[in-house]
Amino acid sequence: MKTLEQKIQDSETRVFKVVFPNTTNHYDTLFGGMAMYLMDEVAFMTATRFGRKKMVTVSSKKIDFNQPIPADTIIELVGKVVKVGRTSLEVEVEIFVEEMYSEDRRSAIKGGFTFVAINEDKVPVPVL
Amino acid sequence: MKTLEQKIQDSETRVFKVVFPNTTNHYDTLFGGMAMYLMDEVAFMTATRFGRKKMVTVSSKKIDFNQPIPADTIIELVGKVVKVGRTSLEVEVEIFVEEMYSEDRRSAIKGGFTFVAINEDKVPVPVL
Amino acid sequence: MKTLEQKIQDSETRVFKVVFPNTTNHYDTLFGGMAMYLMDEVAFMTATRFGRKKMVTVSSKKIDFNQPIPADTIIELVGKVVKVGRTSLEVEVEIFVEEMYSEDRRSAIKGGFTFVAINEDKVPVPVL
Amino acid sequence: MKTLEQKIQDSETRVFKVVFPNTTNHYDTLFGGMAMYLMDEVAFMTATRFGRKKMVTVSSKKIDFNQPIPADTIIELVGKVVKVGRTSLEVEVEIFVEEMYSEDRRSAIKGGFTFVAINEDKVPVPVL
Amino acid sequence: MKTLEQKIQDSETRVFKVVFPNTTNHYDTLFGGMAMYLMDEVAFMTATRFGRKKMVTVSSKKIDFNQPIPADTIIELVGKVVKVGRTSLEVEVEIFVEEMYSEDRRSAIKGGFTFVAINEDKVPVPVL
Amino acid sequence: MKTLEQKIQDSETRVFKVVFPNTTNHYDTLFGGMAMYLMDEVAFMTATRFGRKKMVTVSSKKIDFNQPIPADTIIELVGKVVKVGRTSLEVEVEIFVEEMYSEDRRSAIKGGFTFVAINEDKVPVPVL
Repeated sequence: MKTLEQKIQDSETRVFKVVFPNTTNHYDTLFGGMAMYLMDEVAFMTATRFGRKKMVTVSSKKIDFNQPIPADTIIELVGKVVKVGRTSLEVEVEIFVEEMYSEDRRSAIKGGFTFVAINEDKVPVPVL
Repeated sequence: MKTLEQKIQDSETRVFKVVFPNTTNHYDTLFGGMAMYLMDEVAFMTATRFGRKKMVTVSSKKIDFNQPIPADTIIELVGKVVKVGRTSLEVEVEIFVEEMYSEDRRSAIKGGFTFVAINEDKVPVPVL
Repeated sequence: MKTLEQKIQDSETRVFKVVFPNTTNHYDTLFGGMAMYLMDEVAFMTATRFGRKKMVTVSSKKIDFNQPIPADTIIELVGKVVKVGRTSLEVEVEIFVEEMYSEDRRSAIKGGFTFVAINEDKVPVPVL
Repeated sequence: MKTLEQKIQDSETRVFKVVFPNTTNHYDTLFGGMAMYLMDEVAFMTATRFGRKKMVTVSSKKIDFNQPIPADTIIELVGKVVKVGRTSLEVEVEIFVEEMYSEDRRSAIKGGFTFVAINEDKVPVPVL
Repeated sequence: MKTLEQKIQDSETRVFKVVFPNTTNHYDTLFGGMAMYLMDEVAFMTATRFGRKKMVTVSSKKIDFNQPIPADTIIELVGKVVKVGRTSLEVEVEIFVEEMYSEDRRSAIKGGFTFVAINEDKVPVPVL
Repeated sequence: MKTLEQKIQDSETRVFKVVFPNTTNHYDTLFGGMAMYLMDEVAFMTATRFGRKKMVTVSSKKIDFNQPIPADTIIELVGKVVKVGRTSLEVEVEIFVEEMYSEDRRSAIKGGFTFVAINEDKVPVPVL
């Protein structure tokens, strides 16, 4: 059987994405709402792949948009379980930005999401 | 000239939306990331219509997803300026859910977003 | 119980929207078909929120695209019930354009949509 | 050189489309606004391919949604120039519905769109 | 009853499309993946309209992207059945590019797709 | 400086994605064209992150859709450089399917894409 460490490692979830013009705002940087959309999607997959149970978003923590993400870059979102409660867990998602034509890579946004595991009747159940 | 009260009133920004199947997850409720996307868009319009200056999202505050929003309902997002600093302001966005075939209406999600006004050189400028 | 006046007032439906690049054509103005799409969506919500019954679009009236709507503006669509028949009703939708960085606001497009209220068997039923 | 007849024939513009679930409303039929969106896009291509000049939508005529278009059918939109003025022209678009698993095909919606040919300065110019 | 020739002719499926900015990559040409998406959709409609049975994509053949397709052109995709087996068939899809403001038209991409006809239990059945 | 081995390892590009209803066809499995769209996007990012130069898709190899990918699963696309020429390179993309609520994971689709590195004048240049 897997250890908690192993489950956390195996459920790490990565998504690369080109910042195409149809995801940017009129400043030509990734629209903040789109960043949140992508982060929640990655967080949801991380939580589900950790618990292999139905998971619902309960809350998002404060998210700082430290750095604008310009169009025509490649971003990687990395989701990782950082806290495990009885029926809830917390996932942290970090967005890295890579220039297309250089090896430059830096962290741009970090955010936390809390999920609760539920059964068919939408009653909270143990995540493990 | 408009008073601050008047500017806040005039910049209140409302968006109704049908929760169509293409915005829901596999539990048939509005996908959390989609809710955040819509909230940020409304917050951005509220901030811009208040200051009539370029506004960038600096951070989102903790958002509680108290109630799932089922498919085939109508939601209204209401954005309102709740705090005005020198170069920044805070917008609160609330999502209400209405049943389609009854007068039932209730609050489902509330969240706060902080914006900074910037000039062409991306330097913060007074919001008023 | 609500008067007709009250029901019309309460069902007024407003939608603000940023004209992002992904909704514009190659003249950098809002694509006509997208305007019609948004108008029908607002008309549908207005009709449903008025009657709280299933509503289907029966026809759209002549729509004049008096003024092109440039990218990087904010539009507001306002839907209002303007005629109430026995099993049908008519909704008028007007689109206003606001500059982002000035208080300038003007009417751009106006259109009418007719809806019929139907029951589960798709048979027309009284709207009130 | 082409005759008018020939130009009309050559500019006829056809678009087949599967009515996938992400284009339908909660009655599981093609959303009216989506039908209008597709019709305007076909009308625009027909007008442009006829005149080979910049064309802008001036107005849409009354559109009757005679028949709902169910999900999981295939539709064909056919655009045809039906009237040619000096600086404007009129395009008629008809939508046909085909069952997927039978040869059944019928007309569902018909609508007219008026376009004006413009030059770089957005001044109307002769369509021919 | 229709001959094979007639069935092939009747199932030819055409789709015109404006290459709007939201379908292009950062070189301002149609994104390769989007071309494949559109080709598979046309191939699927051609196969279904030929056999009037459930069809599933089994494979795509080598596709050469001979010519980039610039933004602000009009493309036409033409799907045609080119081989008919017992339970499978092959569809060829060709993409033509038309300049908007001249009669210039040329072939840009060609690709083949193989489909199998299946019944309710997902078992292959004769296409004819 | 990095070895070729290292560059191949570092450019491996992974994308997880929930198969939401809006990406499926009417058989409730991932639409073939959507799979190709996603594969080309991953292949493009892999090629760009390997060469850090402008890359254009030249061709896709035969793609076998061995296994339908059902809705409500999680897929992972993995892109890897498998051949390096002077001005071209080949990327292989494999799609794995994971059940949401079990550890079950299997390979579903594999495909190859060829890219050419180009400079500002669209002339092929060495990839390394």
